[in-house]
Amino acid sequence: MAKIAICGYGIVGSGVAEVIAENADSIARNAAEDVSVKYILDKRDFPGDPFENMIVHDFSVIENDPEVTVLVETMGGIGAAYDFTKRALLAGKSVVTSNKELVATKGHELIAIAKKNNLNYLFEASVGGGIPIIRPITQCLAANKLDEVYGILNGTTNYILTEMIQSNASFEDALHQAQTNGYAEADPSADIEGIDAARKICILSDLCFGKHVNPADIKAQGITGVTTADVEYAKRLNCKIKLLGRALRTGHETATAYVAPHLVSNSSLLSNVDGVMNGIVVHGNALGDTMFYGAGAGKRPTASAVVADVIDAVKHVKARKYLDWDDAPDGYFTDSSYVSSRWYIRANTSLQQIGWAFGKVSFVTYTGAAGDEYAFATEPYDENTILKLTSGMNIRSMFRILD
Amino acid sequence: MAKIAICGYGIVGSGVAEVIAENADSIARNAAEDVSVKYILDKRDFPGDPFENMIVHDFSVIENDPEVTVLVETMGGIGAAYDFTKRALLAGKSVVTSNKELVATKGHELIAIAKKNNLNYLFEASVGGGIPIIRPITQCLAANKLDEVYGILNGTTNYILTEMIQSNASFEDALHQAQTNGYAEADPSADIEGIDAARKICILSDLCFGKHVNPADIKAQGITGVTTADVEYAKRLNCKIKLLGRALRTGHETATAYVAPHLVSNSSLLSNVDGVMNGIVVHGNALGDTMFYGAGAGKRPTASAVVADVIDAVKHVKARKYLDWDDAPDGYFTDSSYVSSRWYIRANTSLQQIGWAFGKVSFVTYTGAAGDEYAFATEPYDENTILKLTSGMNIRSMFRILD
Repeated sequence: MAKIAICGYGIVGSGVAEVIAENADSIARNAAEDVSVKYILDKRDFPGDPFENMIVHDFSVIENDPEVTVLVETMGGIGAAYDFTKRALLAGKSVVTSNKELVATKGHELIAIAKKNNLNYLFEASVGGGIPIIRPITQCLAANKLDEVYGILNGTTNYILTEMIQSNASFEDALHQAQTNGYAEADPSADIEGIDAARKICILSDLCFGKHVNPADIKAQGITGVTTADVEYAKRLNCKIKLLGRALRTGHETATAYVAPHLVSNSSLLSNVDGVMNGIVVHGNALGDTMFYGAGAGKRPTASAVVADVIDAVKHVKARKYLDWDDAPDGYFTDSSYVSSRWYIRANTSLQQIGWAFGKVSFVTYTGAAGDEYAFATEPYDENTILKLTSGMNIRSMFRILD
Repeated sequence: MAKIAICGYGIVGSGVAEVIAENADSIARNAAEDVSVKYILDKRDFPGDPFENMIVHDFSVIENDPEVTVLVETMGGIGAAYDFTKRALLAGKSVVTSNKELVATKGHELIAIAKKNNLNYLFEASVGGGIPIIRPITQCLAANKLDEVYGILNGTTNYILTEMIQSNASFEDALHQAQTNGYAEADPSADIEGIDAARKICILSDLCFGKHVNPADIKAQGITGVTTADVEYAKRLNCKIKLLGRALRTGHETATAYVAPHLVSNSSLLSNVDGVMNGIVVHGNALGDTMFYGAGAGKRPTASAVVADVIDAVKHVKARKYLDWDDAPDGYFTDSSYVSSRWYIRANTSLQQIGWAFGKVSFVTYTGAAGDEYAFATEPYDENTILKLTSGMNIRSMFRILD
């Protein structure tokens, strides 16, 4: 009988308790022993909750109980979560987390502590919610040299963009709708500014390319600048606007990563990844493209990924996992401005100026489009070049096209 | 230094040799030791081939060399492949295979032999080519009770159907095109009759639901009956025709599986899985739907899945893998006729007869449609009911609609 403790009884933490109780039989079969929750750490009490008698307020109760072999950290943030994770690893307990902020910033250090103590630090739920992605990248694609990973990594912004595309809603209305339905928080900035996606693309870059990328270093552009006009023009280009996190090798020992809205073709798989769903594409030199799709957030999907890691930690109590990356040497991380792509541009300018800058471009319009602007798609340019070419134009929107 | 032997130097076998040579560095890092090929067993010689000096013709050379710790079986079939796999396991070597026929029919027995000898029998490449699917199902989704798995499992038929949809080609022309491009064999029957997809859906059913399903027991309908008229009518129903393998639980201790063409909605992810690509959807009670997409066949993609298993076998030389299923009790496998779905029907009959049988239905037509037939979509019925309702109609095509 394996005993676990959950730190943080919020949405994901309570989902973990529920899934462990509900799927006890299949979990026991997969883990080769019964798994049960012994403690749940939270500041609050939960009178009437089915798990109320497991609530504790003092982490040292968990830390000092040798019967607890796995800690589930679903607190979020890098304060107490970081402290408790280190203490648990030093006390001989493996740790499983859904905390992308902690993994993206301190993952390398925590993995090192886990390894030193012959324990596991597992974080399948930190990217893509319930989608299996961390383990497939590190195990199933191990025969490939991976050179690019990108995808729809944030369910909240994808829900907002999908509402804008399918219901012609404004950004503000779609955001309000997301908040009403519980898909966006009262303070939605971490989602809509691309900060959450930035943490996730850093973790994917770390794992795919083997070197650490600091979330603070990467450019994250959110979706607050996407308008209904952009959505309409994109439709005429047979595209949908999606917020993508993207990481790619830029040379033998260099890589970059960024987050930005992109126009993706209607014939691509990502274009049908709608609502709160996530989709992640990985490109390997032997395999080509592979995509992973599923619920990127939500109580039970995320909990299912956490519990899969718990099962793994229970089965391989003292086995080391080769789920790791190195510190990046100087010069490893390059500026994403140098990445070349076609661009969608909406600008208040003259045909003449567009002609001078780009030669021939593909213009698009729609009934109801503003009379004082042009929208068009360019040939491939890097960001520095496109900024030079458009200087002097009054740019209203400019997004990369993913080809 | 881990030494491996490859049995069968065809498309996949030669891809394995190539990928191991080309990605030696990343493979060594992931396996925590160098991996190299020592023998390649084939009836033929390969003068001038870069690996010609490794060719052997006698399996006992491999069997009796203790330095070889992993056998890669890429021969196909259940004759010599079955014999060599058993002998390798009894000689203390783990076995990695891409042979879906062998896994679907004898997998349970071979896994048992592997376990008894504390070895691994791994078969990631047997379903979905290079797509990570076997390991994600057994590990990443371990916290879920899985209740359905379905997908586009055969690249040849998907290529043919995609040609019919995108280029208005007839079945015969599209098949010829597939043969010209090397996507279909001279005798394409295992692909176009659904036999290959049937083997793969059996393996997926075995793993997802934990009980053996015999490929001989399941109904496999191929794509030879799909016409350009069906493709056109499907377009008017906002659908594409795709050949799906599908397995689902039908009760507490019962399940079914079948292979048949389906109409899938243009808004579904599977509808954009085109050409030789495969896409597999798994539904779990905690996670909901998740999809895996990628190259379902081809030399290097399939080789990349084989080599990922080789890395796993090298890293966990004596570790048992919980990649297994049980014999099915009597009555476990139920007739797929009882599965209910909406149906697309194309029939030479009268409006009156359709009205008597179904009440209101959604008719579709297109410019150039035959004048002596109706095409329509029904409400959900099981197959036995639909056969009764349509008796007396001259049915030209009848396919399930996947909702």
